[in-house]
Amino acid sequence: MLRSIKYMILNPYWIAGFVDGEGTFYIGINKQPSMKIGYQILPEFRVVQHQKDIKLLYAIRDYFNCGVVRKNHDNRYEVRVRSLKHLREIIIPFFEKYELQTQKKFDFLKFRTIIQSLIKSPMNNQDLLEIIKISKKMNRKEKMKALILEKEIDQNKVHGNVAIH
Amino acid sequence: MLRSIKYMILNPYWIAGFVDGEGTFYIGINKQPSMKIGYQILPEFRVVQHQKDIKLLYAIRDYFNCGVVRKNHDNRYEVRVRSLKHLREIIIPFFEKYELQTQKKFDFLKFRTIIQSLIKSPMNNQDLLEIIKISKKMNRKEKMKALILEKEIDQNKVHGNVAIH
Repeated sequence: MLRSIKYMILNPYWIAGFVDGEGTFYIGINKQPSMKIGYQILPEFRVVQHQKDIKLLYAIRDYFNCGVVRKNHDNRYEVRVRSLKHLREIIIPFFEKYELQTQKKFDFLKFRTIIQSLIKSPMNNQDLLEIIKISKKMNRKEKMKALILEKEIDQNKVHGNVAIH
Repeated sequence: MLRSIKYMILNPYWIAGFVDGEGTFYIGINKQPSMKIGYQILPEFRVVQHQKDIKLLYAIRDYFNCGVVRKNHDNRYEVRVRSLKHLREIIIPFFEKYELQTQKKFDFLKFRTIIQSLIKSPMNNQDLLEIIKISKKMNRKEKMKALILEKEIDQNKVHGNVAIH
């Protein structure tokens, strides 16, 4: 996919407004036997758009100077930031300065709490359960997955990959 | 529904970004036998949100100092502007100044063309067909309705209410 010659310069308030409508603060939790805790917490900030607005995704990536633009599914693309360093040093300070106005702000605050908790290593089962507890409140649609995962960890059982957002 | 005591002050760029994600520029076309042309063109700018963000809809209404907040369906509410005067004098100049960045901008430009055409009265069948032709390009999902309506007007037949957006 070729990027347009015309360069888009976005206003930070515009980005905050657009993310209030279209952005997601996501916490993925995957089984990772190689890690001491047995699970990997994968925070991700993303904005998904139809292919016709891919230029805009690149403009968001360029504004933050971090993240990548990748195919989401079908004709949808996403700009996403997964690096803990970039989330902590770029994405979180941005939304602290340019505040979200919808209830998504509370998702962002929970996301920030999880990032802060991930920085304080090493993490134990209690920390993991705490993160899952917070994740559960971030998106009701995935509540059932979170409840199952919580039970698994509580019982020290492992049942494959589970992602919560 | 009580409005919150805390007053939200929105940044215009934030509004443009939010509308890029969540707003709609809509053209309704209804049968109206009392009107000379037989149809009434009803342009509408609206933003729909879940009830939990109703405060924000009031804040958008207050920012523009026009429009109303009404129930949309179920637990969803909308802020909408239907007044041709307010669309022409407030909404259109706003989005000319604080530009949309997604492809929705082209919907806005078509919407503006229709508003400008509505100002130039009286309207004849040719004008109406032109408006329908533009509306058709605004939202592919409603294309079939527009095609039916176009045929009806072309044949001077009337089959009840049809709305295009």
